[in-house]
Amino acid sequence: MADPKDVSVLLRALNGERVDPPPIWIMRQAGRYLPEYRELRGRAKSFLDFCYSPALATEAVLQPLRRFPLDAAILFSDILVIPDALGQKVWFVEGEGPRLEPLIGQERWVFGDTEKAIQRLSPVYEAMQRIRGQIAKDVALIGFAGGPWTVATYMLQGRGGDKDDARRTAYLRPSEIDALLSLLVETTARHVAAQVKAGADCVQIFESWAEGLPLALFERLILKPTAALVSRLRALGVTAPIIGFPRGAGAHMGRYARETGITALGVDTQTPAAFAREQAPANMPLQGNLDPQLVVAGGEVLEQGVRHVLDVFRNGPHIFNLGHGITPDATPENVSALVRIVKGAA
Amino acid sequence: MADPKDVSVLLRALNGERVDPPPIWIMRQAGRYLPEYRELRGRAKSFLDFCYSPALATEAVLQPLRRFPLDAAILFSDILVIPDALGQKVWFVEGEGPRLEPLIGQERWVFGDTEKAIQRLSPVYEAMQRIRGQIAKDVALIGFAGGPWTVATYMLQGRGGDKDDARRTAYLRPSEIDALLSLLVETTARHVAAQVKAGADCVQIFESWAEGLPLALFERLILKPTAALVSRLRALGVTAPIIGFPRGAGAHMGRYARETGITALGVDTQTPAAFAREQAPANMPLQGNLDPQLVVAGGEVLEQGVRHVLDVFRNGPHIFNLGHGITPDATPENVSALVRIVKGAA
Repeated sequence: MADPKDVSVLLRALNGERVDPPPIWIMRQAGRYLPEYRELRGRAKSFLDFCYSPALATEAVLQPLRRFPLDAAILFSDILVIPDALGQKVWFVEGEGPRLEPLIGQERWVFGDTEKAIQRLSPVYEAMQRIRGQIAKDVALIGFAGGPWTVATYMLQGRGGDKDDARRTAYLRPSEIDALLSLLVETTARHVAAQVKAGADCVQIFESWAEGLPLALFERLILKPTAALVSRLRALGVTAPIIGFPRGAGAHMGRYARETGITALGVDTQTPAAFAREQAPANMPLQGNLDPQLVVAGGEVLEQGVRHVLDVFRNGPHIFNLGHGITPDATPENVSALVRIVKGAA
Repeated sequence: MADPKDVSVLLRALNGERVDPPPIWIMRQAGRYLPEYRELRGRAKSFLDFCYSPALATEAVLQPLRRFPLDAAILFSDILVIPDALGQKVWFVEGEGPRLEPLIGQERWVFGDTEKAIQRLSPVYEAMQRIRGQIAKDVALIGFAGGPWTVATYMLQGRGGDKDDARRTAYLRPSEIDALLSLLVETTARHVAAQVKAGADCVQIFESWAEGLPLALFERLILKPTAALVSRLRALGVTAPIIGFPRGAGAHMGRYARETGITALGVDTQTPAAFAREQAPANMPLQGNLDPQLVVAGGEVLEQGVRHVLDVFRNGPHIFNLGHGITPDATPENVSALVRIVKGAA
């Protein structure tokens, strides 16, 4: 049996235990708000090259752990490595975000197969192995992927922004959309399973674009594919806890929590803890949900905000996190203060 | 007593009556999806000039009524006439949207006063009077304004897009934000009261940016100013029904419906009717919420979508509408089909 000291508090919380103080990690904890990350990023030509370099990706993951006593490390990668591995052209415009050759406008959608995509993604699994070898046993290692619909919207529209075009395509080309989602479910399941095999203790599904969908589309584009993904992961022998993060799901959040098979629910900035607790199955671990802008603002409002989050999630298993990714204009000093407050709150 | 024929079905629904078929109007029903609007728009140099021309604004309002048997007309104007009238520089970039000289970055915020703003807005009230004189008695006339926070975010950021900067400013400059919201509450109340005096039967408050706010900010930036606006309107003698449309409010929607004093609740595209009904006070009229993309898609999915909306809102007073504004790429033919289905659904 493992030494209890070696079991990450994150995994205990994911197992349904109320841990005090709660485990903490931060979405995008490795990233542009850290000067050492910006320096490191300059060593690769493109962002995708960076993601596919096991050495650089590993170093990026370790950087925030050197600064802050976080309870988890998360793989450094991007949700769009999947379309890239499936043969769609993907690139990143500095300061603007990802761009893809949009499927909308193409008469036929042609993709590579899952097997080859997983081979292409082997540097990701190599990074995961390296990270596992370099972090303490009590730091949990998180793998991740995008939710099928979120990845599909990027593939369809070629960029972020409003999702009108993707939604319209779901109405106009239903069988092609269903086929795309099936491909993404299978490829994502294999990708996540490979991450777990390479050392991930748990995984997060980022459904960053769960917002704006009428119920019928939420069922078809989010609930069904996510349930299929979770069940495929279990069929592949993955027993690791799965955190689902349906950002912007609003009134649909409860159904996501109850019907997809996820282990824990990521709560976005705008959703009150009480609502999430009431909508989720009893004792489901909840993760979140400090406003990332408080980590930019700092000072007393940050401190009040952190204490408020600790307080409102206190009535069940909780993993402290932001309600969305940390922004590049946040400061390491504010992150340091935030972690100190959480750790001192027992 | 008014001839019952002359009482708009919209006003009956706003009075809590379940009308079958439900009254229908469409957010942005006068606008770019109509070729005759695009022609008319060319007659003014700028979009604001267009809004401030009683003749052009009136004609724009009448255009959709000539095509479709809609139950309401809505003033043609913009929520940003208020910052314009308060002295902030406002302009519109064709195909992109509004731009303002952003308050963020300015050390001191200086505005004109409410009295002068209302004088400056007199062409709007003149348009309202003209419209009233030219529409049938059984067509309700709707006035409108933006919610204080939605207008404030434009004023702060100078444009649409994510609201991170506005939210951060709410943390960092709280007393200035509160002063700005107070000014907007008073000016908006006077603006709406003047519209009602000029002939509006009811009004809608567009809180288009109710999304993304943690509960504490939702209380401070949306609930409190909206409640103040409604109560100021009542103090000014306005008895007209008030439709509140808190787009993206998600889990906060119930509190908006229950705590602001609004008469009816506009339901956005993603919120299920059952959730809205359960969260709103008993028998509150609900308005919405067809996906605007269905009016682009057309055909069978449009028909199914319309019938679904009619069906799920059937258990209480309902006003048929979209869940967000109609988009420029919708077609008049699809609007025609939509109205026909609604009208034939009794």
